[in-house]
Amino acid sequence: MQLSSKFIEAAVEEMASLPGIGQKSALRLVLTLVKRDEQSVRRFAKAFTDLKENICLCSKCYTLSDESLCNICRNPNRDGSTICVVEDVRDVLAIENTHFYKGMYHVLGGRISPMDGIGPDDLQLQSLFQRMEDEDVNELILALSPTMEGETTSFYIYRKLKDKDVILSTIAKGIGVGTELEYADELSLGRSIEHRTPFEASLHRS
Amino acid sequence: MQLSSKFIEAAVEEMASLPGIGQKSALRLVLTLVKRDEQSVRRFAKAFTDLKENICLCSKCYTLSDESLCNICRNPNRDGSTICVVEDVRDVLAIENTHFYKGMYHVLGGRISPMDGIGPDDLQLQSLFQRMEDEDVNELILALSPTMEGETTSFYIYRKLKDKDVILSTIAKGIGVGTELEYADELSLGRSIEHRTPFEASLHRS
Repeated sequence: MQLSSKFIEAAVEEMASLPGIGQKSALRLVLTLVKRDEQSVRRFAKAFTDLKENICLCSKCYTLSDESLCNICRNPNRDGSTICVVEDVRDVLAIENTHFYKGMYHVLGGRISPMDGIGPDDLQLQSLFQRMEDEDVNELILALSPTMEGETTSFYIYRKLKDKDVILSTIAKGIGVGTELEYADELSLGRSIEHRTPFEASLHRS
Repeated sequence: MQLSSKFIEAAVEEMASLPGIGQKSALRLVLTLVKRDEQSVRRFAKAFTDLKENICLCSKCYTLSDESLCNICRNPNRDGSTICVVEDVRDVLAIENTHFYKGMYHVLGGRISPMDGIGPDDLQLQSLFQRMEDEDVNELILALSPTMEGETTSFYIYRKLKDKDVILSTIAKGIGVGTELEYADELSLGRSIEHRTPFEASLHRS
């Protein structure tokens, strides 16, 4: 796309470097910013430099945090005996937004994927095993994606910890709440039958 | 959404303030930026402040420009006897990208829309009529959207200029190139029959 200004061109290029934003959408977003007043655009830009300058990984659970220990790890009301292992910071946010979980987290920063050249040493696995030694953990919930790589990673953790005195659980897989049975995919439906739960247990759920 | 860092929260809020970007996409984009190195994020932010500080409207055609006269108005190879009237800067870019047009532009900055409280005085119409006095213009192409407001604006310009010695034309409306006739909407198909062109003329087109 040929643009009438090299400043617009630069801004469009930066915007289009983000995932899922093409040249045309980028231009639309940039022109929206052009129409705003200078202070508003300055605030927009500052939010990103501030972010990069101030953010770090929590030294315990490796989620993104403003301080060296994140507000979940710092919170005395959270249940320290349960750790939920997730792939990414976004998964922490997704689980937090359910308001169902009151334990701790451990963010691996990805999953084992030989195809992409990601091995166990590229993830926060050693730090997880160290936490299992240092902390008084009763249960480890493996909340990794039900994909080939996710299950490989779960299995890797399972093998390392299966002889320890800790409950290893994984999030339930089945059909989504509100899904019509006839439209559910075969794998999920099969899992939901294989791992059926006592009806009475379902009565206590919201 | 509850986030673990107020800096992420601020960045997500700014990103989600752009049109078509929701909270979840905003978070995804912000986390992409977090993963980049500091210099790259600084460049990202600087592109927008630079943009706002350096950009202005061309004093002649009112498109966005780095200088007081845009590079189209400054270009001696462009045909100054033809002016194409468009609503928005994006329309200039769209037409420029066709590489079909070698004349000048005039950006109105919107269209007459009494419903939104936009009257002729809110647009660059007076400056257009002034250009018709000052410049040696042979043809004025009305390239406004074929909507109610676009046609109202076109008609307003037509009424003001119809007695002047200038050819007033409008972009052809019909069915899009590559469209299957059976899927074309009735209005476009109707227009394309009403404004049919000599077959020989179509032979010269690319």
